[in-house]
Amino acid sequence: RSPLALIAGPCVIESREGCMAIADKLVKLSKKQNIPLVFKASYDKANRTSINSYRGPGIAKGLEILSEIKEKYNVPVLTDVHSVEEIHIASKVVDIIQLPAFLIRQTDIVVAAGESGAVVNVKKAQFAAPWDMAQVVKKIESTGNTKIMLTERGASFGYNTLVADMRSLIIMRELGYPVIFDATHSVQSPGGKGDSSGGDGRFAPYLAKAAAAVGVDGMFIETHPDPENALSDGPNMIPTKDLSRLWKKLSAIDEVK
Amino acid sequence: RSPLALIAGPCVIESREGCMAIADKLVKLSKKQNIPLVFKASYDKANRTSINSYRGPGIAKGLEILSEIKEKYNVPVLTDVHSVEEIHIASKVVDIIQLPAFLIRQTDIVVAAGESGAVVNVKKAQFAAPWDMAQVVKKIESTGNTKIMLTERGASFGYNTLVADMRSLIIMRELGYPVIFDATHSVQSPGGKGDSSGGDGRFAPYLAKAAAAVGVDGMFIETHPDPENALSDGPNMIPTKDLSRLWKKLSAIDEVK
Amino acid sequence: RSPLALIAGPCVIESREGCMAIADKLVKLSKKQNIPLVFKASYDKANRTSINSYRGPGIAKGLEILSEIKEKYNVPVLTDVHSVEEIHIASKVVDIIQLPAFLIRQTDIVVAAGESGAVVNVKKAQFAAPWDMAQVVKKIESTGNTKIMLTERGASFGYNTLVADMRSLIIMRELGYPVIFDATHSVQSPGGKGDSSGGDGRFAPYLAKAAAAVGVDGMFIETHPDPENALSDGPNMIPTKDLSRLWKKLSAIDEVK
Amino acid sequence: RSPLALIAGPCVIESREGCMAIADKLVKLSKKQNIPLVFKASYDKANRTSINSYRGPGIAKGLEILSEIKEKYNVPVLTDVHSVEEIHIASKVVDIIQLPAFLIRQTDIVVAAGESGAVVNVKKAQFAAPWDMAQVVKKIESTGNTKIMLTERGASFGYNTLVADMRSLIIMRELGYPVIFDATHSVQSPGGKGDSSGGDGRFAPYLAKAAAAVGVDGMFIETHPDPENALSDGPNMIPTKDLSRLWKKLSAIDEVK
Repeated sequence: RSPLALIAGPCVIESREGCMAIADKLVKLSKKQNIPLVFKASYDKANRTSINSYRGPGIAKGLEILSEIKEKYNVPVLTDVHSVEEIHIASKVVDIIQLPAFLIRQTDIVVAAGESGAVVNVKKAQFAAPWDMAQVVKKIESTGNTKIMLTERGASFGYNTLVADMRSLIIMRELGYPVIFDATHSVQSPGGKGDSSGGDGRFAPYLAKAAAAVGVDGMFIETHPDPENALSDGPNMIPTKDLSRLWKKLSAIDEVK
Repeated sequence: RSPLALIAGPCVIESREGCMAIADKLVKLSKKQNIPLVFKASYDKANRTSINSYRGPGIAKGLEILSEIKEKYNVPVLTDVHSVEEIHIASKVVDIIQLPAFLIRQTDIVVAAGESGAVVNVKKAQFAAPWDMAQVVKKIESTGNTKIMLTERGASFGYNTLVADMRSLIIMRELGYPVIFDATHSVQSPGGKGDSSGGDGRFAPYLAKAAAAVGVDGMFIETHPDPENALSDGPNMIPTKDLSRLWKKLSAIDEVK
Repeated sequence: RSPLALIAGPCVIESREGCMAIADKLVKLSKKQNIPLVFKASYDKANRTSINSYRGPGIAKGLEILSEIKEKYNVPVLTDVHSVEEIHIASKVVDIIQLPAFLIRQTDIVVAAGESGAVVNVKKAQFAAPWDMAQVVKKIESTGNTKIMLTERGASFGYNTLVADMRSLIIMRELGYPVIFDATHSVQSPGGKGDSSGGDGRFAPYLAKAAAAVGVDGMFIETHPDPENALSDGPNMIPTKDLSRLWKKLSAIDEVK
Repeated sequence: RSPLALIAGPCVIESREGCMAIADKLVKLSKKQNIPLVFKASYDKANRTSINSYRGPGIAKGLEILSEIKEKYNVPVLTDVHSVEEIHIASKVVDIIQLPAFLIRQTDIVVAAGESGAVVNVKKAQFAAPWDMAQVVKKIESTGNTKIMLTERGASFGYNTLVADMRSLIIMRELGYPVIFDATHSVQSPGGKGDSSGGDGRFAPYLAKAAAAVGVDGMFIETHPDPENALSDGPNMIPTKDLSRLWKKLSAIDEVK
């Protein structure tokens, strides 16, 4: 039985140095607690609420940084993509291509992700039911690629609010692929601050524990040394310094569940 | 630190013998695993979907059976009430008066429950936000009674569906009272079978684990030796024989969380 | 074909004089525009958010005022009830007994309303699907009473928010009874102001127009000469002086729909 | 005051002949009832539930057919796009570029639509609140393009269900742009049939009437001579033969509202 995996990193690459510093801390944590780690960072926040928000360094610079982290730390890396072209480029560098929740109904993008040969992590859309993921899975499988992961990240619950339905973890697991719980986006309040998304990061550790108890293959956690000053999704993120203590809990729950 | 408590029993009293048999099994379980137990049963299902459904033995006969169980097993008993009059009668027998979710906005009933001097377990309504419970709590506190428990049992999520928002356990705990998770009603599909409520009891153990990981003071679980033939809420209930194994898990999660 | 009916009045009886003044204006409006009018007022807001909120003059005083209005203006009157006992008392005075949304699953109350012989107006619960009303209707029909009205007043949509699903008017009409649209409660934000319910009354006329276009038998509108200073549900109400102009629109839509 | 506009056509172009036949009927209707008409058809259903579903003739063939309709009937045409590249190509032919609901958070696509100089019709996402559209509008306005239309097409309401919140029409109108109501997608049940979306087209005319009564600038209606045999979204569509009678109602409601 494999231990609980951790997919973690900043929401967006703010700088090479900042990204490396977070990677450094995560790699140390993964070694200390023997955690299968995937480093995650976005080169472009292509779907920010406001046009004035920071988007990232772009695909070229971003992949360069992810590539450097991959080599330096010998850790698999994940990034999210927003078009067929980006998939062609990103899949040459990263180990895991992530389909953003808003895009999982775009057949061409889903199929291109499958055809890339990379592992494909599908974020379940806020507008989708867990059983709806069967059709997304079939689209990827149609390419012959069965390296699929499915991630819960909250469902629409009235306006500007998400709710994490823990049953979804069981229902998606029945599709036969690893299931991940995204603890930090599940507490997001989409568009909740008018020109940016709000959320309440203090609930993220609790939801992570809940998901570990239900049973998942990994946790997706966005982290930042200083969430209050993060350039994207600060309100949801877990401070990097809190991860060590949290993971001891998650790991223990995973073992006894 | 007190161990996780268990509030359990059948949905409705089907017969004196059936009720005693379930109590017997639960008391044995509580002794074996050292679980603080509250025995729960309803004398009247006053809010069945259909007028043709079984409602129970009535308040007189039902309280007699609960009284017998209380004495025989020296276990506290809980029942739900549906009017001020029922509170006056039931609070003479039971230790915990439970306010059904649909009735928590009825000020007279809430106040009467407080004035009864019994412990009051409030089921959060399907139509209420967790922070809405602050006002219900104030109504009970206005009577001088602070023996209050708050129970999550799922929130309305579209038609005929509930979702258990695990954040609610944290938000309600901040009101300063013990929080209970109702694992079997949270998986209910209200009115989902047309003339009765459906649901999917196979999710109940998972949601119970999730709640234990978030942190609760107790679990509320409706159980039946043969859920398929139960006279009420069969689709949601956990078979009595499965409780021993489940509780080992819940207890272990509660300890490491 | 009968013209669109109007069920209107203040949320709660604030005083005999205030209630009479509103009745006077409504009766004048009904005569001028030839509107079948039912006067509506509550003697007790039994389910206020906060224990400190005004509840009303009580059943004795309240029914006296309703009785006076009924006689003076020769207009049918409606009030809502909260227990079997209240039904016995109120049905001696009022023409229409209204079952509050939160209470429509309480079989004894539903049956007592049916047995009273009065017309029964059932408010669809915030937690109920439109098709769930079939079972409530059957409970009333079981008493031999088929003088039933069904009222849409919004469904739970995330926390502290309601949404009016216009399809519900069609679905409920298929049950064979008159359907009413409650324009002022449908825009309520339940518990939305912390210790009271909020809402946005400016949407009420629009939703009323929408419902008229879909097709209903009547409108339920709470009105007050000065909503900002109303003792209950002020944020949702339509100012009495606006009703004349609104009704011309509603009536015209009803005719061409 | 301009009369209510109609944006109508088949969901997807099934064939040149089929498309022309529908256009022919719609143009005749628009002349007879003096309706400002926009012909709508998709060349590619890029977000079908299942990978096995029909997607359309593709962008080249599709735009050719739309171009032919535009010239033959002198009617503006609308189509939806799924990438920046498609916007570059389609905006050379069509008058109105439509941003699909799932894609309105993709800044590059939104900005490219603005930069195309075409009129941009934004479908409000199922996961978005009406006030969230302010940020999408700002993204388009940032390009200097203010030819914007906003379309309501239902909001997520639990799993596989949408609800049309009529308040959204008012809230979006306050952004200063024409507001359209999409009557046929609002009754969709996304993914509701497992490998395709279901829905209940019989509610579409009622919701259209409701929106007309609230006040909109236009209606978006997908239509087919034989919805049961349509290759996409059949369950929601309004039969073409029913449009004439429906429009008389909508137009009358629009005038008296």
